[in-house]
Amino acid sequence: MSEKNSSNDSIPPKVVIVGGGFAGINAAKALGDAPVSVLLADRQNYHLFQPLLYQVATAVLSPADIASPIRHILKEQVNAEVRLGELTGIDLEKREVHFPSGSARYDYLLLAIGATHSYFGKDGWQAIAPGLKTIDDALEIRRRILMALEEAECEEDEESRRGKLTFVVVGGGPTGVELAGALKEIAAHSIPSDFRHIDTTTARIILVEAADRLLQAMPEEMGRRAELDLAEMGVEVLLNSRVTEMEDGAIYIGDQRLSTENVIWAAGVQGAPVVRSLGCELDGQGRVMVNGDLSLPGHPEVFVAGDLAHVVDPESGDPVPGVAPAAKQMGLFVADLIGKEVAGAISPQERPPFKYRDKGSMATIGRFKAVAALGKHRFSGSFAWLLWSMIHIYFLVGFRRRFFVMMSWVWHYASFHKGARLITGSPRMRIKSPRGAGNGEGKNE
Amino acid sequence: MSEKNSSNDSIPPKVVIVGGGFAGINAAKALGDAPVSVLLADRQNYHLFQPLLYQVATAVLSPADIASPIRHILKEQVNAEVRLGELTGIDLEKREVHFPSGSARYDYLLLAIGATHSYFGKDGWQAIAPGLKTIDDALEIRRRILMALEEAECEEDEESRRGKLTFVVVGGGPTGVELAGALKEIAAHSIPSDFRHIDTTTARIILVEAADRLLQAMPEEMGRRAELDLAEMGVEVLLNSRVTEMEDGAIYIGDQRLSTENVIWAAGVQGAPVVRSLGCELDGQGRVMVNGDLSLPGHPEVFVAGDLAHVVDPESGDPVPGVAPAAKQMGLFVADLIGKEVAGAISPQERPPFKYRDKGSMATIGRFKAVAALGKHRFSGSFAWLLWSMIHIYFLVGFRRRFFVMMSWVWHYASFHKGARLITGSPRMRIKSPRGAGNGEGKNE
Repeated sequence: MSEKNSSNDSIPPKVVIVGGGFAGINAAKALGDAPVSVLLADRQNYHLFQPLLYQVATAVLSPADIASPIRHILKEQVNAEVRLGELTGIDLEKREVHFPSGSARYDYLLLAIGATHSYFGKDGWQAIAPGLKTIDDALEIRRRILMALEEAECEEDEESRRGKLTFVVVGGGPTGVELAGALKEIAAHSIPSDFRHIDTTTARIILVEAADRLLQAMPEEMGRRAELDLAEMGVEVLLNSRVTEMEDGAIYIGDQRLSTENVIWAAGVQGAPVVRSLGCELDGQGRVMVNGDLSLPGHPEVFVAGDLAHVVDPESGDPVPGVAPAAKQMGLFVADLIGKEVAGAISPQERPPFKYRDKGSMATIGRFKAVAALGKHRFSGSFAWLLWSMIHIYFLVGFRRRFFVMMSWVWHYASFHKGARLITGSPRMRIKSPRGAGNGEGKNE
Repeated sequence: MSEKNSSNDSIPPKVVIVGGGFAGINAAKALGDAPVSVLLADRQNYHLFQPLLYQVATAVLSPADIASPIRHILKEQVNAEVRLGELTGIDLEKREVHFPSGSARYDYLLLAIGATHSYFGKDGWQAIAPGLKTIDDALEIRRRILMALEEAECEEDEESRRGKLTFVVVGGGPTGVELAGALKEIAAHSIPSDFRHIDTTTARIILVEAADRLLQAMPEEMGRRAELDLAEMGVEVLLNSRVTEMEDGAIYIGDQRLSTENVIWAAGVQGAPVVRSLGCELDGQGRVMVNGDLSLPGHPEVFVAGDLAHVVDPESGDPVPGVAPAAKQMGLFVADLIGKEVAGAISPQERPPFKYRDKGSMATIGRFKAVAALGKHRFSGSFAWLLWSMIHIYFLVGFRRRFFVMMSWVWHYASFHKGARLITGSPRMRIKSPRGAGNGEGKNE
């Protein structure tokens, strides 16, 4: 690795970064001036501003408002190249990563492929209750929400119509809170006059949380405030409630059956499954237990950052949370270490531990309603909302995105009109047939 | 129909409009004050500003920039309701139209479901060369263009890479001209520095036209000018050239084989196939031969408007062209007739013929390049382009759309950056297996 290559001027050490999220993209950019060659690979061609993904799902923003092509972000960075492809395997001995289009050797590897939904072993739920991680997820959720309303408008059976007008969000973290609030606003304000046969203001929005409060990653008073705000808006918040079963058209909360054709999963996440083949220790959510310097135990040349990493902050003693600022800080930390080692300034034995600098957390609830905890300060209501808006606009990649998102919001909050309310794409299968009938590959059984 | 109902105050005559394009949406809006009830049905939930669809395919605009939910357009119109559903059949005797969600009776019917691609009997070509009619078509074409570039970047075989960097547009009408020009701009200006292993400025863009000039619906000098402009930009324009065969990875122009993995179909259109069951006379392109008043022969209560109608203008003697302004004028004409008949002002026997008011035509070629023929005036170059921009902005539905599109263009033309360059969705099948194996419907042969 670096030692070997620093004696050979012609070939700079190769840093392979897998994942173009907040960790990966920030690491790649921070290595712009380092004497290394960078390969950034991702299964999507875009870097996504994930904190606003729920606004694509709820038709406030368009995909292009919150996503930027990775190639475009790195176009000026001459030491970086980009590959589109999903990681299929890692060979720690040979120091190679595998993609469908071929393999790539590395001197340093940064794994930052994030997390995926966890259905706590009930994988069949995925078809009924999609989660929200990618643009395609968001467009699928948008399609389902809008189609449910269209179907309700034509439905003559009262019970079936109620099911189509009942929206259940599972999980009371920021994504769940934001989705539930946005759904209520759509149903109550944006679309009632679009329909003739249904009254969308009667649509039920139900937020289900297994714990005894919302927003567990935030201070308790913020969770309570979110609960009150949502209740005031008309969202039914069910705490201490667990989804025990799902079937087509209904879910069970505890032993109570609830007719609903719209379930969105915002509950569990787990580390990307490909790391299971590494043979390293994983935590209960499938995240990699890394050293304090974010390296894989026994492999100082391999780092893990972002939602995929389980690391304990040395000062607070708490695990670093799976949020965008933490991922960004990890990516910058790893890039800094690699840069210093390649330059010979430090050796792997001298690496400092990663320290998370918590700048606070916030969640938006609805029009002019949000909660924020910044250091010792607590904000709620319209001031918190304004703060939330400004901070999210600021962190969006690139001027164009910032400007367009701001204009979309001004338009949306002033008019309640959802500009992006288009149904596109074909439906994903709701219920997978257990034997995967007829995928054209000639599975004769 | 109207006579029958006008004696019965309680039930207004029912006007069913199928198709929410320029004809249908304008007819529905024009009936806003008429004593009728309107049902507008479409298989999509949006009205599409089709003249700019190629800009979604080429990643300049987002779908929401050029499409508006039909429900939203008609939300204030109390006599109108909207249904999402594809027309599956028409019963002229019972005066009923059929949708998957049920049937609807009509007193007046306006069929405005437009046209679809025609592959001149070679239906297998559709999988290789998608056409551009819907948002989903545009996103599919965008996905293919961007994926071809991604694949070329990884491809080591020179011939295969050339095929991925060769883009063929079939058909030299406005859509074909605009697509070819936009593709050249992307390859030559927007993205070269995004890639490390390929030189996108060497990508070939080939425009194939069977006739001896481009833009046949416009005056000859405009077609020649477009040809010169495109050639100057580096587009290869092949006139008097016919695609004779297509296979995966290549097309044949005459008897010459050309390796290409990117073919876009902008050649033929045909009337929507559902009208074949009507038993009425169709022209060679499957459009309905209507009376001068746009009614179906023998059925004064059924009108056909837009791209689906074949009607000859009584003054010029020419068939009315399949363009947005003609569709709009037809929709307004039919709404006016229905309004007058319901009010008892005229009888079906007194209907005037539809007259097309040709305000001109235009096509954009590239950055600051367009051609326009407005009455006797001919424009080209940057003035025509400015005219084209202003007119298209003006006709976009709603202020939001106009404003956002204008800002996107300013951004795009100033920076050459394609803001919407995201790959989303799953690939549609490129090559359909000839027997349609395994669609899960149990086609045992």
